[in-house]
Amino acid sequence: MWMAFSDFPPPAELPNNMHHSEVLQYLRLYAQAFNLLQHIYFQTTVTAVSKGPDPAVEGQWVVETEGRDGQRQTHVFDAVMVCTGHFTKPHLPLQDFPGIETFEGRYFHTWEYCNAEGLQRKRVVVIGVGGSGGDIAVDISRVAEKVYLSSRSGAWVVSRVGQGGIPVDMLGNSRMDMMLQKFFPSWSVRTAEKKLNDVFDHRLYGLKPDHSIFAQNAVVSDELPGRIISGRVQVKPNVKEICGSSVIFVDGSIIDKVDVVVFATGYNYSFPFLPPALQSKSGYRLRLYKHVFPPGLTRPTLAVVGFVHGLGSLTPLAEMQARWATRVFKGLTSLPSEKNMMEEIEKDTELMFVLSERNPIQVDYIPYLDSLADLVGVRPNLPWLFLKDPRLALQVFMGPCTAYQYRLTGPGQWAGARQAILTQWERVLQPFRTRVIPEPENRLTSKLRIMLVFSGTSLLCLILCKKKCLCSVFSFLLVPK
Amino acid sequence: MWMAFSDFPPPAELPNNMHHSEVLQYLRLYAQAFNLLQHIYFQTTVTAVSKGPDPAVEGQWVVETEGRDGQRQTHVFDAVMVCTGHFTKPHLPLQDFPGIETFEGRYFHTWEYCNAEGLQRKRVVVIGVGGSGGDIAVDISRVAEKVYLSSRSGAWVVSRVGQGGIPVDMLGNSRMDMMLQKFFPSWSVRTAEKKLNDVFDHRLYGLKPDHSIFAQNAVVSDELPGRIISGRVQVKPNVKEICGSSVIFVDGSIIDKVDVVVFATGYNYSFPFLPPALQSKSGYRLRLYKHVFPPGLTRPTLAVVGFVHGLGSLTPLAEMQARWATRVFKGLTSLPSEKNMMEEIEKDTELMFVLSERNPIQVDYIPYLDSLADLVGVRPNLPWLFLKDPRLALQVFMGPCTAYQYRLTGPGQWAGARQAILTQWERVLQPFRTRVIPEPENRLTSKLRIMLVFSGTSLLCLILCKKKCLCSVFSFLLVPK
Repeated sequence: MWMAFSDFPPPAELPNNMHHSEVLQYLRLYAQAFNLLQHIYFQTTVTAVSKGPDPAVEGQWVVETEGRDGQRQTHVFDAVMVCTGHFTKPHLPLQDFPGIETFEGRYFHTWEYCNAEGLQRKRVVVIGVGGSGGDIAVDISRVAEKVYLSSRSGAWVVSRVGQGGIPVDMLGNSRMDMMLQKFFPSWSVRTAEKKLNDVFDHRLYGLKPDHSIFAQNAVVSDELPGRIISGRVQVKPNVKEICGSSVIFVDGSIIDKVDVVVFATGYNYSFPFLPPALQSKSGYRLRLYKHVFPPGLTRPTLAVVGFVHGLGSLTPLAEMQARWATRVFKGLTSLPSEKNMMEEIEKDTELMFVLSERNPIQVDYIPYLDSLADLVGVRPNLPWLFLKDPRLALQVFMGPCTAYQYRLTGPGQWAGARQAILTQWERVLQPFRTRVIPEPENRLTSKLRIMLVFSGTSLLCLILCKKKCLCSVFSFLLVPK
Repeated sequence: MWMAFSDFPPPAELPNNMHHSEVLQYLRLYAQAFNLLQHIYFQTTVTAVSKGPDPAVEGQWVVETEGRDGQRQTHVFDAVMVCTGHFTKPHLPLQDFPGIETFEGRYFHTWEYCNAEGLQRKRVVVIGVGGSGGDIAVDISRVAEKVYLSSRSGAWVVSRVGQGGIPVDMLGNSRMDMMLQKFFPSWSVRTAEKKLNDVFDHRLYGLKPDHSIFAQNAVVSDELPGRIISGRVQVKPNVKEICGSSVIFVDGSIIDKVDVVVFATGYNYSFPFLPPALQSKSGYRLRLYKHVFPPGLTRPTLAVVGFVHGLGSLTPLAEMQARWATRVFKGLTSLPSEKNMMEEIEKDTELMFVLSERNPIQVDYIPYLDSLADLVGVRPNLPWLFLKDPRLALQVFMGPCTAYQYRLTGPGQWAGARQAILTQWERVLQPFRTRVIPEPENRLTSKLRIMLVFSGTSLLCLILCKKKCLCSVFSFLLVPK
């Protein structure tokens, strides 16, 4: 649900958590619905982007490409969007693993992993517990003799199956949740971490990280705890060194006869095709105004889209960046002066480090979306909505913050947005209805009722507990920034 | 832990939930420790058991066998234990699936299933959600195009990873839990079912059964909910009929292009090698005194071991039956008269139907163990233990009811039993200690403290709530039956 584009809910027959083939199917349906395929060149590599050929025409770009057949071409475009993301260059820090050159087995980066073929009955060390590390360790553990999952700093692990079986991305990501997180940060962290520890004690399982749950995207895995309790995956600390076929860990333990080491050590970003001036950095990230526009262009006709992280799906973020960028391209929205942009970029970089020193391109999910939505003119006006359409306002405030909220009003308004929001819980339940067990009462109504009572009560309690927050809560509610 | 034999805790390096290869390793270690291998003929089929050749020697049995090479042999034994269990004859009720003869795909019983080889990209219908049905549906779903899991009556699904990540078999199976279940049955059922529904709402997932959680062993699966939410496994109702390559369900829905149907329809029992007189039934089960001895033998030298079900591991049940049977064989314990045995068998059969009409060979786990332990003389005397060794008594009463409890005293007493009980939590935690995260305080102590306070309080509350139960609770505690 959270992965959906703002004006195209996935068909009801698709499951809540789609298989990659179903994600592809969704993207194909989207492209078909908006007649996009005719505009796309597939299997074409961009080798260079440089400033336009005609000095008289500002803002044009020359794009050099190489087709599948090796044929090179040059095109001139009025604007360019760079959407290569941050998973482009495998990060393989061999220098951090002394003795790797003596390793007698095979090693590779997760980037090369396709399936567990060839790893049957092997002894495998996976280094790194990120999304890939967790998934690949579980996958290999089904055929390997044993998988050792080495982690330097641990990870929070969350199941797709949220409390009561609700898809986890539908829980805890409403505007109300965000408000509670903002005003009661330590309470929110404690509550969220307690929930994850109730599923399995991260300390007991050797995975408890030093960083808080909101400092980095959690590892999504339904199966890792079960593989650990069954001993098929054994969690290990950081690797100290490698010697022949032995891997030595920082706690002094040694695993012998290791056949394969998998480096789940993540990615670096890389934009080799951009002019060097556009590759300059601010902190770890590219120097981009609101993560999209390089400052200092005479005309803002180049935008970077999707080079950002958030505690949520990338689709709405990237889509909102693209909506803003096209308006800027078209001159419907203007950018501040270069100096102001530079100042804000530096401020953002400092803030981002505070937000998550572990993930230097992480933004505050809903506030970032809202700030772009403001620029596009599509941010929902909650107080007004509460007066005009309270039922909808309640869902916008307390329901999962799905991207349809940004199609209710303003440019690109979509007539189906209201209905898409009001029926989103229905669409979550729909794929489960393959063996219907009669309900004792209307569950949806009762769920909504419980949600209302609970949320109201907790909001009231919290506000009463922290009276000094009262004013700021109300000002937050009433004044869209 | 719960699968362990009473005098042989599994080695600490084995995980809490063993892989089948590790279970085999444990059994081999057991056989080695007690020097059993020399007494066992492997790969030898018993084709017939009949009364002994010499009428002057009562109680002997002639056992006909067939070796791997087809060589037939006849042996005379002084006693026979039948340990073939109840998973001997696949139950394939084709008559309940009209049109199965028209099915264009392949069908087979789970008994034939080894792995998902050959099911890649197939459309598979699995019929039946028992232990095998759940496991096999999940396994196939990794390679199949889609798996449809058809269930007539639903199932409770429990993960190996219990609350807080504790192995689920260590939770909720203490003598105290059993006492609470006995005196507050509906509260216990509600509490247990709520816990499972907190993990995922069984109604939402189309799995909610009509029967209560204690009426039948739950399906143990860590991965089924995740496969359902991802749409890889789709729960369907009972099959109405099959037509060509289509499967029609009772709700009228139809799945076309089905390649494979897997019948996870369970097993019937079968003891074809026994004399017909010993195959007579009481209800669904064999007519056996305390599920072990056929009445009406002139000397009780034939026992059936392991032909029973309980909400727990079979190992302690079968071991206790065997301990009793050998004492009866040796004449150290005698059986009641045939008439009394017959009466008790009939009474038991009626009771079992009340206990679980869904599982006609299910016994009440700890009470059944205790009743045999009484006959063997190894039932722990709790009041006495509370006076003599309160620390141990607390673990025996409130800790998981592992089989070591039946080695504290009496025939076959084992000196290591006390230690095995007192260190059982330690042994549960040990396999997790592969990446140790420093503890803020002594967790075990604090866990025990919390457990004590919680249990004491809840016991008190419940007793106060239901004053009329006060007497029976105390009489139950103080008078071993």
